[in-house]
Amino acid sequence: MENQIFQLQYAIDTFYFLICGALVMWMAAGFSMLEAGLVRSKNTTEILTKNVALFAIACIMYMVCGYMIMYDGGLFLDGIAGGSTLVNDALSASAENGFDGGSVYAGAADFFFQVVFVATAMSVVSGAVAERMKLWAFLAFAVVMTGFIYPLEGSWTWNGDAVFGLFNLGDLGFSDFAGSGIVHMAGASAALAGVLLLGPRKGKYRADGRVGAIPGANLPLAGLGTLILWLGWFGFNGGSVLKLGDITSANSVAMVFLNTNTAAAGGLVAALLVARAVFGKGDFTMALNGALAGLVVITAEPSTPTPLVATLFGAAGGILVVFSILFFDKIKIDDPVGAISVHGACGLLGLLLVPVTNGDVTFLGQIVGAATIFAWVFGASLVVWAIIKFTFGIRVSEQAEAEGTDLSEIGMEAYPEFTSGGSRRTA
Amino acid sequence: MENQIFQLQYAIDTFYFLICGALVMWMAAGFSMLEAGLVRSKNTTEILTKNVALFAIACIMYMVCGYMIMYDGGLFLDGIAGGSTLVNDALSASAENGFDGGSVYAGAADFFFQVVFVATAMSVVSGAVAERMKLWAFLAFAVVMTGFIYPLEGSWTWNGDAVFGLFNLGDLGFSDFAGSGIVHMAGASAALAGVLLLGPRKGKYRADGRVGAIPGANLPLAGLGTLILWLGWFGFNGGSVLKLGDITSANSVAMVFLNTNTAAAGGLVAALLVARAVFGKGDFTMALNGALAGLVVITAEPSTPTPLVATLFGAAGGILVVFSILFFDKIKIDDPVGAISVHGACGLLGLLLVPVTNGDVTFLGQIVGAATIFAWVFGASLVVWAIIKFTFGIRVSEQAEAEGTDLSEIGMEAYPEFTSGGSRRTA
Amino acid sequence: MENQIFQLQYAIDTFYFLICGALVMWMAAGFSMLEAGLVRSKNTTEILTKNVALFAIACIMYMVCGYMIMYDGGLFLDGIAGGSTLVNDALSASAENGFDGGSVYAGAADFFFQVVFVATAMSVVSGAVAERMKLWAFLAFAVVMTGFIYPLEGSWTWNGDAVFGLFNLGDLGFSDFAGSGIVHMAGASAALAGVLLLGPRKGKYRADGRVGAIPGANLPLAGLGTLILWLGWFGFNGGSVLKLGDITSANSVAMVFLNTNTAAAGGLVAALLVARAVFGKGDFTMALNGALAGLVVITAEPSTPTPLVATLFGAAGGILVVFSILFFDKIKIDDPVGAISVHGACGLLGLLLVPVTNGDVTFLGQIVGAATIFAWVFGASLVVWAIIKFTFGIRVSEQAEAEGTDLSEIGMEAYPEFTSGGSRRTA
Repeated sequence: MENQIFQLQYAIDTFYFLICGALVMWMAAGFSMLEAGLVRSKNTTEILTKNVALFAIACIMYMVCGYMIMYDGGLFLDGIAGGSTLVNDALSASAENGFDGGSVYAGAADFFFQVVFVATAMSVVSGAVAERMKLWAFLAFAVVMTGFIYPLEGSWTWNGDAVFGLFNLGDLGFSDFAGSGIVHMAGASAALAGVLLLGPRKGKYRADGRVGAIPGANLPLAGLGTLILWLGWFGFNGGSVLKLGDITSANSVAMVFLNTNTAAAGGLVAALLVARAVFGKGDFTMALNGALAGLVVITAEPSTPTPLVATLFGAAGGILVVFSILFFDKIKIDDPVGAISVHGACGLLGLLLVPVTNGDVTFLGQIVGAATIFAWVFGASLVVWAIIKFTFGIRVSEQAEAEGTDLSEIGMEAYPEFTSGGSRRTA
Repeated sequence: MENQIFQLQYAIDTFYFLICGALVMWMAAGFSMLEAGLVRSKNTTEILTKNVALFAIACIMYMVCGYMIMYDGGLFLDGIAGGSTLVNDALSASAENGFDGGSVYAGAADFFFQVVFVATAMSVVSGAVAERMKLWAFLAFAVVMTGFIYPLEGSWTWNGDAVFGLFNLGDLGFSDFAGSGIVHMAGASAALAGVLLLGPRKGKYRADGRVGAIPGANLPLAGLGTLILWLGWFGFNGGSVLKLGDITSANSVAMVFLNTNTAAAGGLVAALLVARAVFGKGDFTMALNGALAGLVVITAEPSTPTPLVATLFGAAGGILVVFSILFFDKIKIDDPVGAISVHGACGLLGLLLVPVTNGDVTFLGQIVGAATIFAWVFGASLVVWAIIKFTFGIRVSEQAEAEGTDLSEIGMEAYPEFTSGGSRRTA
Repeated sequence: MENQIFQLQYAIDTFYFLICGALVMWMAAGFSMLEAGLVRSKNTTEILTKNVALFAIACIMYMVCGYMIMYDGGLFLDGIAGGSTLVNDALSASAENGFDGGSVYAGAADFFFQVVFVATAMSVVSGAVAERMKLWAFLAFAVVMTGFIYPLEGSWTWNGDAVFGLFNLGDLGFSDFAGSGIVHMAGASAALAGVLLLGPRKGKYRADGRVGAIPGANLPLAGLGTLILWLGWFGFNGGSVLKLGDITSANSVAMVFLNTNTAAAGGLVAALLVARAVFGKGDFTMALNGALAGLVVITAEPSTPTPLVATLFGAAGGILVVFSILFFDKIKIDDPVGAISVHGACGLLGLLLVPVTNGDVTFLGQIVGAATIFAWVFGASLVVWAIIKFTFGIRVSEQAEAEGTDLSEIGMEAYPEFTSGGSRRTA
């Protein structure tokens, strides 16, 4: 009978991982719709292609080598066989850990939950480099990012490995519950490196010093994307408790759901009010950015704040994101969807707020951790982007940029009947 | 070992609440897409802003005071501290109820499930007042509705409080399983009050007595929104069983899922056939309204009908909604998305059908309950709308209505490249 | 206490079915968006109406008679009472099977999970006959397909019935885990029969032998639809394990989730690369078709391959689908969304790949099974389509096809403000 109880717990925790993983997979749709809504119609098919392809690449690369690098300390090539051993790992894990009541669930479920995180990190990048980067250059970077750069970085905290064998972030009091830094700021760091090498879109920063507004073509899609991300984030943060099947864990999962929701709400309202003060109107895209900012901020520690504090943390993110977006435009770093602000600036804020409610975490640890993540991901990404830039090139031609990347990279328009050009796809 | 079994049940019931709550949160996307699809393009960004902002406001207001008013009988100000005590409530609840096998789960999960209902009630309002109400007037009403009007009304049935200390609806045989009346009809009542003070859109009711058709700009979004609501409704009704972890409860949850689905199907088919008879074609938006009507009708009691009866109840809703929409246009109450018909008329029908399959419920109780809900929510809303109207104003200027509320209230268009005007957003 | 454990297992397995069923229901939105994105704007409302209406019809017909035909061996009319006995079935099943630890869960949950599969089979049809079939002819076919053709076919494998009393597919070593053949290829067979009687769209196959490109009007919707289907497929395949509540089952469910995901990823990447080789660019719609192809292929057996093998199986589907689409255009079978290739060709491939990883299955059995499914569904569908064609007609008039089926069948346009015609809906 004890066996039956153990089996039930195993089943529940496995199912919990799978459902949370499915919700995180759903975030791929969120990023796709958000970015498709915020670019111009002539670059829409291209960014959609990037989004679905990066998800697929992330799933394959993480299976081929990423998971082994991140959690088994294996060398790159060891990972090639990783896919086929996952089931065995799962079965042996259950046999070994048997009846000790520990955190035991199907290894395949754990992999499934982890793999969708990789895609999230990479999704952050696609928005920032939108409307001017070559499709295949982007996908080449995705291979390296999801197979190597992210897994190595992730191993430091979530597997407890020493940073390049030198020091251990956990010993310094670093903590990042579900990945404000490890996933979101990491994605933003890779994006920043790409944007620096890529340069701004034509017409964004004008000779007279003014910043040209380049409005998104389909704002309902941006709204839909944000709400998809909001929903998916329950899995992202909720699943990061890593266990459901006892009272303490269940309470923690419930608090995480609640705080995730309320931080998004706080971020949205704060950004809406700040935007009203700054721009005079109820800025819809800033409201969306505010919600996402709140979600990124709370991700570093959604289990210890009270709901009221989580709302305030989210609101802090909502305020920061407005000024961060203005700041990046001021220094002429062109980020069409505000991804660096939402995931980078707010990811850092999230890390720095953890010690406020979690006494086991130190400000020093958070700062060292954030600096380590940024240094590695930004540096490694800069090298990879540079290699791609000076071999194949990363930016589309001026003509392609003017006509739109949909025609140059994909050969089909997103809305052939709605825009004046009509369909130009050849039979 | 008994402890382990209890812990598992606690975890299961908590997870069930969280998943159902996440599905109800997803309904916010459903309302957003439905309404964005049914308004004209020039009012799309504005209604999207209202939808995401009302969700955020509902989450914050319910945390700050609504939950306390509804379930703890606290005064308004007592609620301010409510957020921070939710975790403690959860832990103490589990300690107290311990091993009695009762309905025990994380208090935070309960709050999370409840809070998304508040937003649903408010979402009903945004559709009815679309295309002509000021953004900030709407949001001010949302604060009062989600923080006070709805929680007080909800406390009467779902917490068993006496109506203003006078009489108890439960004693009269009133029952509303998941909120046909408490959530949907309440939302419609608040909307009706707003619409009466707001008046119809320009051009809707012409001088010659004809009703001007104002078609929605993006019907795929309306279809998507309806299917999102259909999915989310499994959480709305399924979670309202309030327990999963034993055979009786699990059977009830399963019947509720099944009946929710089949009532929507019945409503859709009935509305499609009736619309064909009346209009001569397969009216898409009426089919969508029919599905939603079926969902609203079954919400009052999805656990006792057989699936066949649930289908027929849904079909009754699908028939009613077509004629209700025609009726409201006849009396010149302008409801751009048919929200008052779908949620109000069909919410009432749902309440009245409960005694047919649930012997514990009386027609008298249902009528008194419906009248009580309507009287309070309509009356209180009328006062609040009137205060806003005569201080800040609730209706945009004629010029703003003609140009579109996207430009006047938000300052950005939803589809700047698709409509003839092109982008008018200033840099 | 043993009773409590049994009750928990019952609850868990019931909940697992309900969540998986809800995910499959969500696939209705996936098909709706995919097809709405891939047709021209003038046929968008009509295909949306077909999609939501077929889902509702499937739910009603399967309740009225389909479920009884498929699982109880009842005659057609016996099924009429089926709806009302489902709850009793559920309760008696739990009482009978009591404490044997077998696969026991609410009968209503089983029905709910099964009913959404019927709709999936029918959804395949709507895409292939898009842009030229009459609404009511399609819905009439949906009644027969979901009430009779599919349930009879499904009973052969999933209920173990002999094919027309002649031979038993299981005895021949036929296996179809979640329905590559039973659901997807069946839908494609019905679609093929319809397309043959319907003929291609005007302008698709030109007099000079060239194939006219007819681009979809809204590709973000196609991307969204594909990602919705991807998410829903976790329920489709994951729920088909039919049990979650012990270690073996939980491991299997986890592997199925993982393999479903990775097969989609493999299909997407393979199709993207093949399309690049063939067409020279990163073809977005082919990438989407590749993901769907991978999903269809793995559906026949997602539990036995390793993730690496699942990826390769998915990639095989992604390659096949590109050439299959080219092939069907070569033989002038006009399938606007590629449904026959995705669900038919790849469904067949999926069946044929099962013996590679599942030793209990034979190639002969798979071939006989596939042939049986195709012969019955194609033959029966051809008869039904022919009857409809020679009584009411199945194709809209040439004028209606030119103006768009939205105006002729539905009376409202999908995007009245975005296309040059403007709104032509009469008040």
